[in-house]
Amino acid sequence: MRQKDNSLRKPVRSKAADDDLLKLEARYCSWGDTVHYSKELNIFDTAEGIYLYDKKGTEYLDLQMWYSAVNFGYRNERLNNALKRQIDKLPQLACQYLHEEKIRLAAKIAGRAEMTFEEKGRVHFNVGGSAAVEDSLKLVRSHTGRNLMFAFMGGYHGRTLGASAITSSYRYRERFGHFSDRAMFIPYPYCFRCYYGQRKETCDMYCIKQFEKLFETEYHSVLNAKTGRCEYGAFYIEAVQGTGGYVIPPFEYFSRLKEILGRYNILLVDDEIQMGFFRTGKLWAIEHFGVVPDIIVMGKALTNGLNPISCVWAKENLISPKVFGPGSTHSTFSSNPLGTAVGLETMKLLEEEGFAVKVPKKGEYFVSRLRQLMKKYPQIGDVDALGLALRIEICENDGYTPNKRLTDAITEIGLSGGLTAGGKKRGLVLDVGGYYKNVFTLAPSLYITEKEIDLAIDLFEEALKKGIAATT
Amino acid sequence: MRQKDNSLRKPVRSKAADDDLLKLEARYCSWGDTVHYSKELNIFDTAEGIYLYDKKGTEYLDLQMWYSAVNFGYRNERLNNALKRQIDKLPQLACQYLHEEKIRLAAKIAGRAEMTFEEKGRVHFNVGGSAAVEDSLKLVRSHTGRNLMFAFMGGYHGRTLGASAITSSYRYRERFGHFSDRAMFIPYPYCFRCYYGQRKETCDMYCIKQFEKLFETEYHSVLNAKTGRCEYGAFYIEAVQGTGGYVIPPFEYFSRLKEILGRYNILLVDDEIQMGFFRTGKLWAIEHFGVVPDIIVMGKALTNGLNPISCVWAKENLISPKVFGPGSTHSTFSSNPLGTAVGLETMKLLEEEGFAVKVPKKGEYFVSRLRQLMKKYPQIGDVDALGLALRIEICENDGYTPNKRLTDAITEIGLSGGLTAGGKKRGLVLDVGGYYKNVFTLAPSLYITEKEIDLAIDLFEEALKKGIAATT
Amino acid sequence: MRQKDNSLRKPVRSKAADDDLLKLEARYCSWGDTVHYSKELNIFDTAEGIYLYDKKGTEYLDLQMWYSAVNFGYRNERLNNALKRQIDKLPQLACQYLHEEKIRLAAKIAGRAEMTFEEKGRVHFNVGGSAAVEDSLKLVRSHTGRNLMFAFMGGYHGRTLGASAITSSYRYRERFGHFSDRAMFIPYPYCFRCYYGQRKETCDMYCIKQFEKLFETEYHSVLNAKTGRCEYGAFYIEAVQGTGGYVIPPFEYFSRLKEILGRYNILLVDDEIQMGFFRTGKLWAIEHFGVVPDIIVMGKALTNGLNPISCVWAKENLISPKVFGPGSTHSTFSSNPLGTAVGLETMKLLEEEGFAVKVPKKGEYFVSRLRQLMKKYPQIGDVDALGLALRIEICENDGYTPNKRLTDAITEIGLSGGLTAGGKKRGLVLDVGGYYKNVFTLAPSLYITEKEIDLAIDLFEEALKKGIAATT
Amino acid sequence: MRQKDNSLRKPVRSKAADDDLLKLEARYCSWGDTVHYSKELNIFDTAEGIYLYDKKGTEYLDLQMWYSAVNFGYRNERLNNALKRQIDKLPQLACQYLHEEKIRLAAKIAGRAEMTFEEKGRVHFNVGGSAAVEDSLKLVRSHTGRNLMFAFMGGYHGRTLGASAITSSYRYRERFGHFSDRAMFIPYPYCFRCYYGQRKETCDMYCIKQFEKLFETEYHSVLNAKTGRCEYGAFYIEAVQGTGGYVIPPFEYFSRLKEILGRYNILLVDDEIQMGFFRTGKLWAIEHFGVVPDIIVMGKALTNGLNPISCVWAKENLISPKVFGPGSTHSTFSSNPLGTAVGLETMKLLEEEGFAVKVPKKGEYFVSRLRQLMKKYPQIGDVDALGLALRIEICENDGYTPNKRLTDAITEIGLSGGLTAGGKKRGLVLDVGGYYKNVFTLAPSLYITEKEIDLAIDLFEEALKKGIAATT
Repeated sequence: MRQKDNSLRKPVRSKAADDDLLKLEARYCSWGDTVHYSKELNIFDTAEGIYLYDKKGTEYLDLQMWYSAVNFGYRNERLNNALKRQIDKLPQLACQYLHEEKIRLAAKIAGRAEMTFEEKGRVHFNVGGSAAVEDSLKLVRSHTGRNLMFAFMGGYHGRTLGASAITSSYRYRERFGHFSDRAMFIPYPYCFRCYYGQRKETCDMYCIKQFEKLFETEYHSVLNAKTGRCEYGAFYIEAVQGTGGYVIPPFEYFSRLKEILGRYNILLVDDEIQMGFFRTGKLWAIEHFGVVPDIIVMGKALTNGLNPISCVWAKENLISPKVFGPGSTHSTFSSNPLGTAVGLETMKLLEEEGFAVKVPKKGEYFVSRLRQLMKKYPQIGDVDALGLALRIEICENDGYTPNKRLTDAITEIGLSGGLTAGGKKRGLVLDVGGYYKNVFTLAPSLYITEKEIDLAIDLFEEALKKGIAATT
Repeated sequence: MRQKDNSLRKPVRSKAADDDLLKLEARYCSWGDTVHYSKELNIFDTAEGIYLYDKKGTEYLDLQMWYSAVNFGYRNERLNNALKRQIDKLPQLACQYLHEEKIRLAAKIAGRAEMTFEEKGRVHFNVGGSAAVEDSLKLVRSHTGRNLMFAFMGGYHGRTLGASAITSSYRYRERFGHFSDRAMFIPYPYCFRCYYGQRKETCDMYCIKQFEKLFETEYHSVLNAKTGRCEYGAFYIEAVQGTGGYVIPPFEYFSRLKEILGRYNILLVDDEIQMGFFRTGKLWAIEHFGVVPDIIVMGKALTNGLNPISCVWAKENLISPKVFGPGSTHSTFSSNPLGTAVGLETMKLLEEEGFAVKVPKKGEYFVSRLRQLMKKYPQIGDVDALGLALRIEICENDGYTPNKRLTDAITEIGLSGGLTAGGKKRGLVLDVGGYYKNVFTLAPSLYITEKEIDLAIDLFEEALKKGIAATT
Repeated sequence: MRQKDNSLRKPVRSKAADDDLLKLEARYCSWGDTVHYSKELNIFDTAEGIYLYDKKGTEYLDLQMWYSAVNFGYRNERLNNALKRQIDKLPQLACQYLHEEKIRLAAKIAGRAEMTFEEKGRVHFNVGGSAAVEDSLKLVRSHTGRNLMFAFMGGYHGRTLGASAITSSYRYRERFGHFSDRAMFIPYPYCFRCYYGQRKETCDMYCIKQFEKLFETEYHSVLNAKTGRCEYGAFYIEAVQGTGGYVIPPFEYFSRLKEILGRYNILLVDDEIQMGFFRTGKLWAIEHFGVVPDIIVMGKALTNGLNPISCVWAKENLISPKVFGPGSTHSTFSSNPLGTAVGLETMKLLEEEGFAVKVPKKGEYFVSRLRQLMKKYPQIGDVDALGLALRIEICENDGYTPNKRLTDAITEIGLSGGLTAGGKKRGLVLDVGGYYKNVFTLAPSLYITEKEIDLAIDLFEEALKKGIAATT
Repeated sequence: MRQKDNSLRKPVRSKAADDDLLKLEARYCSWGDTVHYSKELNIFDTAEGIYLYDKKGTEYLDLQMWYSAVNFGYRNERLNNALKRQIDKLPQLACQYLHEEKIRLAAKIAGRAEMTFEEKGRVHFNVGGSAAVEDSLKLVRSHTGRNLMFAFMGGYHGRTLGASAITSSYRYRERFGHFSDRAMFIPYPYCFRCYYGQRKETCDMYCIKQFEKLFETEYHSVLNAKTGRCEYGAFYIEAVQGTGGYVIPPFEYFSRLKEILGRYNILLVDDEIQMGFFRTGKLWAIEHFGVVPDIIVMGKALTNGLNPISCVWAKENLISPKVFGPGSTHSTFSSNPLGTAVGLETMKLLEEEGFAVKVPKKGEYFVSRLRQLMKKYPQIGDVDALGLALRIEICENDGYTPNKRLTDAITEIGLSGGLTAGGKKRGLVLDVGGYYKNVFTLAPSLYITEKEIDLAIDLFEEALKKGIAATT
C-alpha cells in the first residue's frame, strides 16, 4: 500500500539550516499553538507509512498519526493520487456551485448512516473540526431554541469560541473573557479514575444515575417538570474520549444515557472527529454502543489529513431544507473540490479494505503486547483499547497516581531520536493526553503490521526504561 | 502562465448522469449552504484560467473566482505544482511539530508586514477564514479583557457563532438563539447610499464625526469618561467591503477612524480575507489607506483556493509568547504542510509578478469599460473599482433604486450558458453582493488580459440587455 | 394640606454629634451609593412641605423632592395618615395572600389605563423601580423570545444588572463584567444638543428617519427582511428623560417611533418611574404624546416616597393568566400592604386634587420666571418644562458649552445653607442631571405655591450669582 | 409585647364585598405572582401577634410569618411605633443625603459583624432581597472579574434576572430567554435525601469531596491549574436553605467548603434573607457553622416586614471606598428613612430580647412535639429544626416518598379556616417548600409561647388527620 521512495529520506538540511529556521520561528511564528509545549523542537521533512523523518534522515515511528488524522498512513499512494487527479481536473470551485465529488461524498456518508442507523439524513460540509462543531451547534440551537449544552468533563470539541464553550478544560477559556454559552460538564465514565470513587464491578452505573437525578426535580436546576422542558438542548459526546485519554466507556453507558435524553427531547451529538473512520474498528465509534445519535460530526481522517474538510451528518428532521434552508450557514472552503475528492476516495477505500475485521485484530494484538508490558512495569497503571485506539496510563509505582513527569520524560526520549531498539537509531512519536497528562494515546496507522507493532513495543519499552531511570 | 489541456474540456457526463447527481444532491446534501440560492443548479467539471466548464464543455467566463479565493487563475500551474511537490514530500504532519514551509511562510508574511507597517509581529495559522477571525477575537479578548466589538453594517467576517456576532446581517443569527457578544454595527462609508443621507462633496465625513460622538459622554453608552475605558475592545473592518458590495471608502476615512480608536485603546482588526493578496493592487487593501492595523486576518487567495489555510498577523505586543503562550489556541489542520507549501509559493509568486503595477492598470481599463456601459444603461447606477475589485450597482431606471430583480435575471442568464458574445455559446459567472443584493462584485483573475476584459464586457452587456428585456 | 409642627424643626443634634455620625459613616457605610458624589455631606433631620431641615434647623428649599418621589410634599398629612392607619390594621401580609388594598390599587391603575388608552391590562407589583423594570423585561422576553432591547442614550432604568444593561451610561457597567443583554442605544431627541447636529426647525425628525433606516436592509444589522423579524424585542423609553436631564421630546416623536416599532412587532415599554404621577401634568407623561405603550413601569411617587412599592401595567395579551401564569415572578415585599394602602390613597388624592389643571399652570409660571433669568444670564443655555418637570442647562458664556464646574458650584452653594434670599439663612436643594452633568432637573412639590416659586427663583439666582463669582 | 385591639378583629366586609374584590382581582391583577398557586383565595384583613384574621374574624394561626419576614410578630408595638415616629419626623429623604438612622443602622450591623467575625466591613442598603443580591453580584464581579457563580441546588436568591441566574429552579428561567450568567448548581447537603444516595453515618461528607474533585484537573472544567484561577467568582449559599425546605446541613459542612473555596480565591456569599435575624437562634444562621463569609445579604425581618429595606455587608477589601467608590450602585429607596428607622429599632430590640437563649429553647420544645407526631404518623418522614426554623417532611406511608398531594391537602384544610382544635373555629397558615413541594417550612413568631406551640401542634395534627382522610 505504502510507496517507498528512498530519495526522500536523505538529509535535506544541515544543522545550521535548522538553527536558522528555528531563529525565524522564534521571531515570526506565534507560539500560541502547541509547538512550544515541548522544549525540544523537532522539524520533520518527510514521512511515509508509519514513519516521520527529520533532516538527518532519522526515522521516527509514529504512534499518534496527527492525532488520528492520518489513519491510512503517511503518503498513502491511493489517496495522494486522488488528490493529484483532482488538482488536474477541478482544483477550485466556489461552493455555491456543484461538483460531482461533493454530491457523491455526501451520498456515501448519508447512505452509510442510513444503513447503520436506519435514519434518513443529510451531510453539511465545512473545513476544520471546530467549524463542523459550530455547524452542529447551529443545528441544535435552531431545532431546540436552546443555547446551552451538556458535554463531558475531559471532552474536547475544538477551539473556536463556540467549541471552547463546550470543551471542558477551563484553561482554554481563561483569558478569553466571559463564555455565555458555557456547557454543563458531566463526569465521563472514566472507570479507571471514577469521578465518584465507585468501582466498576459494583457501581451499576452510578454515574448515569447521578445524571438522571438532575431531572428529578426542578430544584436540581435543569428541568421545568411542569412543562417537561430542559434548559439544555443537546449532549455533546465523544463515544471514546480523544484528548481526554482514549477512555472507553462501559458498553451500556450510552444506551442508558440516550434513554434519559430522549425523555426530555435533548439531542445527542456525537463528535467522531478523532475516533471516526475506523480508528476503533468501525466507521463511527458510536456504532459499538448501540445508540443512534441525532448528529454526527466528522473530520480529520476523512481525507487522511490531506485536506481539512469536515462535515456534520444530521437526521432529516434537523436538517431538511424546510428547517435548515439555503443560506443557513456556509464557508468559502466548505465543500472544496480537493477535499471532497479525497474524502470520496477514502470512503471507497474503506469499502474495500476490510478494516472492520483487521483493525480489531491488530488492536487485540497490540493491547495484548501492552498488557505484557504492564505486568512488568508497575508504572503502567492501565492499558486499554478499542480497535486501534489504545491508551497507556503512566503512574507512580503504586500503579495509580498519575505520573506526568515520567510521561514527559518518555515523550522527550522518544522525540530525541536516540532509541536503538530494532537495530538502528530511531525516534518514537507519542501523543500525551488524559486529564492528568499522563496517558499515551496511541493512534497508529490502520495499516500497521504485527512486526511494526512489535517494533513499537520495543521502542516504547526502551523509552520507558530510560524514562524511569531518568526520573528516579 | 495557465496550461491548456483540451482533454479536460470534453463532456464527462451525460445529461442523465447530471440528473442522477441532482437527485442524490436533493436527498443527501444539506441545502443549508448557498447552492440553493439559485433555482438552476450548475454542476461544473473542470476549470482553467478564468473559465469554468460544465459537462457539455460549455465555457463560463468567471468574474467572481470563488469570491476572490482564486486570484491567480484556475489550475495555476506553478501553484498546482507546489502542491503536488508537497504531496510527495510531506503531505501530513501534526501541527505540534515543525516543518520548514510553515516557518518560511510565517516569516514572509510577518516580514512583509514589518516592512510595510514598521511593526514587528507574528503569524498564527488556522484553516478557514472564520477560524482565523475567531483567533483574532481571542487575541483581542485576551489583550483588552473585552467581549464586545465594533464592526460595520454591511461587514462580513464569517459564519461561526463568534464570527456571526460581528457580521452585520441579522439573517445569519436569527435562528441560532441569543448572541451574547453581538457587535455594535456602525454605518460603513458607503457614499453612494450614505446612511446619513449626506453628499460626499459636502459632508466632511459626517459619518466619522457621528462615530466620534459616541465617545463624547458616558450617556452615549460606550465610554466611562472618568476612566477613559471603552466597553468595546476592537473595531473589525474590511478596508474594502466584500459581501457588502465591494464598497470603497473615501481615502481619509480609516486614518480618521484610527485616530479616534487610538484615543480609547480600541484595537483595529483588518479583515483581508477577501481583499488581500493584490485583489486591490496591494498585498493588503488597508495599505491604500495609510493606517497600521493591530491585527490582520487573511485567508482565501493565500493558497489560490488550493487549501483552506488562513492566518492572523498581530503586532508583537498582542501575540508575543509572553502574552499568547503555548496552547493559547490551535487546530488540527492549522499549519498543515500542504497549505503552507502553497502559501509559500504564493508569496514567492507575488514577489515576482509585479501585480502592484499590473493590477491597477487592468483595473483602470476594466472600470473605464464599465463606465462606458454605465453611460448607455441607466440601470447601472454606480461602478467603481480599487484594482481588480470592481462593483456594478444595478438599479431601476432612476439609476438609484436597487433593482434586485434585474440583478437576479442577469445572474441567471449568465449561468444558463446561452450567451453568444465572442462568437460561441458561453456562460458568465457573476457574484451578487451589496446591502440590497443588487451589486455585481467582480473579482476576476489577476492574470486577466485586456482581451478577456473586452469579452467580459461584451458578455455582461449581452446579459444586461436580455435581463432588461426579461424584466420589463 | 401640609401640617406644621414646629417642635420638629429645632436642632436635634449638636455639631459634635454630627461629627460623630460622620465618623461612623466613614467607617461603616458603603460609599458605593451616591452620598459621596458631594464632598460636603449634609445630614437632614426633618422635612415638611417643600423644605428639608438640618440639625441646626436651617431650612432648605427642595427643588428635587427625592428625584420626583415626593410629588405631594414632605410629610403630606393625608398620605402619612393612610400609612399609619394601615400600620394599625394590617401592616404585614405574605404576598401569597390577598388584601383589599392590593386589589383596589391594581384596579385603580388598570382602570385608569383602560380609560386613557382603551386597552385592557393588568398590574403586577414589586418593590423598587429596578425590580419593576426587571419584571417588564420578563414580560418582554416571554412574549417576544428576545433578550435584546432598544433603549435611549441618556436613558436611565435602574441599577440591577438587568436594568444596567438597558441604561445607557457605560460607567454603570464598567466594573461589573460582561453584559450579555446590553441594549442598542439610540439617540434621544435631545434637540438642544442634537446628536446628529441637526436643527429642530429644519430637520423633519431626522433622528426618527435614522432609526427607521436600521430596518431598511438586513445588513443594517437588526432585521431579517425575509422573515420580518427583528433582533430586538422592545424599545425602552422615558417619555421625558429623567437622569438624562428632563429632556422633552418633540410632540410627534413618539407617534412616529411607535409606527415603526409596530411594523416589526417591537414592544414599547414606557418607564414612568420618575415622570409618572402628574410630574408633567398628566398621570403618565406618555399621555402627552398620543401613543399607547405596551407596558408602563411605575414607582417612586406612587407612595409619595413612603414605601418602595412599584409596579408594571401591561396589555392583557402580554400579562393574561394564560401567558403569565402563577409563579411567573414574585418578590417577598411585592404587594406589601403598607405600600398598597399608601398607593391607593395616592390614587384617590389624584382623583381629587385637579393636578391636571394646576400642574401645567404652576409649571408655566415657574418656567416663565426661569426664562426671565435666562435672559439675564448667558450661562443659562436652555430652560424648558413639561408641567413641573423643569430643566435649566448651565453653560459657558456662549450659552451652549456645558459648564459642569459652575453647575457643581451652584449645587454646593445651595447645599451649604448660606443663602439669604427671602430674608433668612436658607439652603437650596438641587439635583444635577444631563449627559454632561450641567442640567438642574427641577421636580418641586406639586403643591408648590407661586410665592414659593418666587422664593425658589430668588434663591437660585443668588446661588447662580455666587457660583459665577466663584468660578470666574 | 403584642398589643390587643379587639376592634380590629371584627368582620370588615361582607361575603358579597369579598366576591366583588375577587372579581376585580381576576380582571386587574397580574396572576404572575404566587397568589394563584392556591385555588382557594384568602383575603386577610387584620393581623396580630401570631394570628391573621379574615373578614369574618376567623383567626388563623400563622406558622410561616411572611416567610420569616415577620419574626417579631404581627403589629409588634415597639416596631410599629418606631415606624410611626419616623413618619412624623423625616419620612422621606433622597438617599443622596444622610440621615442619622441610616448611619446608626449600618454601624450596628457592621459592628456586630466585626465582633462576630473579627472582620472589618461595611453595609450597603437597597430595597428587596433580590436587589441586595444584585448588589452582592456587583461586589463579586468587581472584585473577581468573574460573571459566573456557584450556587446550590434547592437554593433561592430571588427573581430579578441576575438573581434567577443563581437560583436553582429552571422553572424560574424557562420563559425568559437565555441566561448568560447561569450558575453552576452544586448538590446541597440535604442528607435526608442525599443527592449522591449516601448515608450520613458513613459518607464522611462525600458531597464535599465531590465538590473538591472539580478542582483536581482542568478537565473537570472549572480550574486552570497552571494559573490557579477558577472560572467561578463566588459560591452563593443559604446557611440553612429556605425555599429548599429549611434543610439544615451537617455542622462541619461549611467549614470544609470554605477551606476549598479559600484555596482558589472563590468568595463565599451568605444569603441570610430568610434565615437571618434570629430565625435560627443567632443573628445570622452562618454563625452556627464556624465560617466567616465574605459577603452577607440581609432583608425580610430586618424591619419585621414593615419596609422592604435590605442590605449587604461585605468585608472591607471588597467594599472600601477605594474599590467600590461613589456611584458604584444605588437605588432611589435604598436607605429610605422609614426603613432604616425600623431596622435600627429591630437591632436594638435584638440586643435586649435574649433571643439567643430563648429561640433555641422554644425550637427544642417545638421540634420535640413534632417528633412525637412523627412517631404517630408514618406520613411524617422527617422533622428537624435549627432554632425556630422547623421542617416537617410529608411522605407516603413509607416515610420517604414525597407526598405532595397530602401536603397540599393539609395546606388547604389549614387555609379553609375550619379547624376546631383549641375550642373554636380556626385556620392554620402553613408554607410549603422543599424540592418536591412536600415540606412544611415553619417560621413562627420568635415570641411564640409554649401554649401557642401546643395549639399549633394540635391544629397541625387535626389538619394532618383530615388530610390523610381526604387523600386515601
